[in-house]
Amino acid sequence: MLVDNSEIEAALERIKHYIHQTPILTSQTFEHTFCPGKNIFFKCDNFQKCGSFKIRGALNAVMKLKEREPDVEAVVTHSSGNFAQALAYAAKLTGVSCYVVCPSNTVQAKKDAAKEYGAHVTECEPTEAAREEGANAIIQSTGAVFVHPYAHPDIICGQGTAGLEMISQVRQQLENGDIGTQIDAVLVPVGGGGLLSGISTAIKYKYPNAKVFAVEPETANDAKRSFDTRTLTPNENYPTTICDGLRTSMSEITFNHMMANVDNVMLVSDEETAKATRFLLSRMKMCVEPSGAVGVAALMNDNNVNKYLKGLKNIVVFISGGNFDFLTQSDLINQYL
Amino acid sequence: MLVDNSEIEAALERIKHYIHQTPILTSQTFEHTFCPGKNIFFKCDNFQKCGSFKIRGALNAVMKLKEREPDVEAVVTHSSGNFAQALAYAAKLTGVSCYVVCPSNTVQAKKDAAKEYGAHVTECEPTEAAREEGANAIIQSTGAVFVHPYAHPDIICGQGTAGLEMISQVRQQLENGDIGTQIDAVLVPVGGGGLLSGISTAIKYKYPNAKVFAVEPETANDAKRSFDTRTLTPNENYPTTICDGLRTSMSEITFNHMMANVDNVMLVSDEETAKATRFLLSRMKMCVEPSGAVGVAALMNDNNVNKYLKGLKNIVVFISGGNFDFLTQSDLINQYL
Repeated sequence: MLVDNSEIEAALERIKHYIHQTPILTSQTFEHTFCPGKNIFFKCDNFQKCGSFKIRGALNAVMKLKEREPDVEAVVTHSSGNFAQALAYAAKLTGVSCYVVCPSNTVQAKKDAAKEYGAHVTECEPTEAAREEGANAIIQSTGAVFVHPYAHPDIICGQGTAGLEMISQVRQQLENGDIGTQIDAVLVPVGGGGLLSGISTAIKYKYPNAKVFAVEPETANDAKRSFDTRTLTPNENYPTTICDGLRTSMSEITFNHMMANVDNVMLVSDEETAKATRFLLSRMKMCVEPSGAVGVAALMNDNNVNKYLKGLKNIVVFISGGNFDFLTQSDLINQYL
Repeated sequence: MLVDNSEIEAALERIKHYIHQTPILTSQTFEHTFCPGKNIFFKCDNFQKCGSFKIRGALNAVMKLKEREPDVEAVVTHSSGNFAQALAYAAKLTGVSCYVVCPSNTVQAKKDAAKEYGAHVTECEPTEAAREEGANAIIQSTGAVFVHPYAHPDIICGQGTAGLEMISQVRQQLENGDIGTQIDAVLVPVGGGGLLSGISTAIKYKYPNAKVFAVEPETANDAKRSFDTRTLTPNENYPTTICDGLRTSMSEITFNHMMANVDNVMLVSDEETAKATRFLLSRMKMCVEPSGAVGVAALMNDNNVNKYLKGLKNIVVFISGGNFDFLTQSDLINQYL
């Protein structure tokens, strides 16, 4: 079952007054250096509320839940961080309680932010099984309704609103600047795949010939293996990467969207991601977390540009989050520079 | 002699295809925490080309120079960094050579950026006299035309284009969101005063009742002393502050604009500026240099909000630059946290 573009449009109507329409930025230096002859549009959801796109899906899911069950008292999820904050914020906004189960290797700042928005945070072992177990225990004891961080149509439709925004924002820029007629390609980070599912649906609906590429760390390459074998193939262990938000694996529903809408999967090394993060900070003045920078990292590699983007002019790269503390975590980046 | 709003409009026509219209961002967390009941609009020229507003004035000045003297071969300036980069970029774009004299305490990254854009960089003692001497020597030996970093109508009009952008961007947001009818106050960092002169002219032309506040470090308080005594009173020595871009003093022309258009001057400590820089990085995901964050620092102080902004609803704070390297310079911020 794939989501429909009309459901994404309905999600945008539902949530648009509670989220930011995040800006699209450009950099001539980036274009000249890494993608000569192309227009690169950076869609910056690091400037989104709670610092990532996750609020889009969380709000859509919780607002729909409140429509269906006005008496709902609490929600619960498991998350490596960004969805935890987002669900906590969405729950607060709609007046329900929020429980989150975080793997023990979750970045402290992300846990703190969820608590700040009023969530009850508990920790678990960093495995998919332990995350689900922890959430189930809370459902049993509190009656909270489970909200999955990515494997649900409401989440996918919420995340897809970023795709609708890109389409209208890039069209405005193209009309003003007369540099082309449409979006030719989009690069989207993939962890669990909710964002990829939503954005790819919106883009392919509007521009059926546009290419959609997923990007993930080479050590957390379940999307690539699943895509190549046409079989859902999760990561066996919790992979090691500086992209803490992309360690999770795709689910059946997001895998199905990928197979329907996505043209290929690009892999990036942590070194490439660190360099992209640094470029975004020093040249584009943006704080982007490593997970949020993988699409930019892919564009900084000639091999990807030559292999996948030949002849394509207008490229949107999605920057998914900015929850990274350069004042205390810079070693994570500097080790590669 | 004060510049006229029509000259600022002409400047915007001249340069608009070569600069970014930088975004306006907002933060509910900031509003709730520091300015309850107000709408705070962050005009983000840290995302401008070359990382600061300086390109606006530099481009206007060099393009006008080329109109008047099509055969001009070189330009020269003295600058603590951001104007150096900007003039280098503007010169490259218009096909003239560029020389810059930087005080010896200029941030290395800013000098490097000017060189990267093709400028010939020489160093001098960190005093106003030495800067002017250095520039004069280059004029003598090369015939380059001097472009002052702030004390010239063309520069003032170029910087004022940021004011015109704010007016149209905030009006769009106000019309969409129905949260008021106009800009009620603007906060602008002041070093040499070119930006303050230009923005204040544009704002007062459109909204004569709006308040315009200059903001500067308490250790580089020539604007405050000049404003209070109604007499141009430069800083005696090159002041010590983490705001390296605001150590310079106002000139007669920018002082005259301040006395005509500005309602008061707010002072901030380096500690307050460091905290503002940290908030902008960690919560708003923006890289802002200390000089660029002083307006935000002023808004984070209750005393300023109560004394100067009582009853004012729609406040624009100008973020002037982002040329700061959090991966290597974070100690400068962390010492205060």
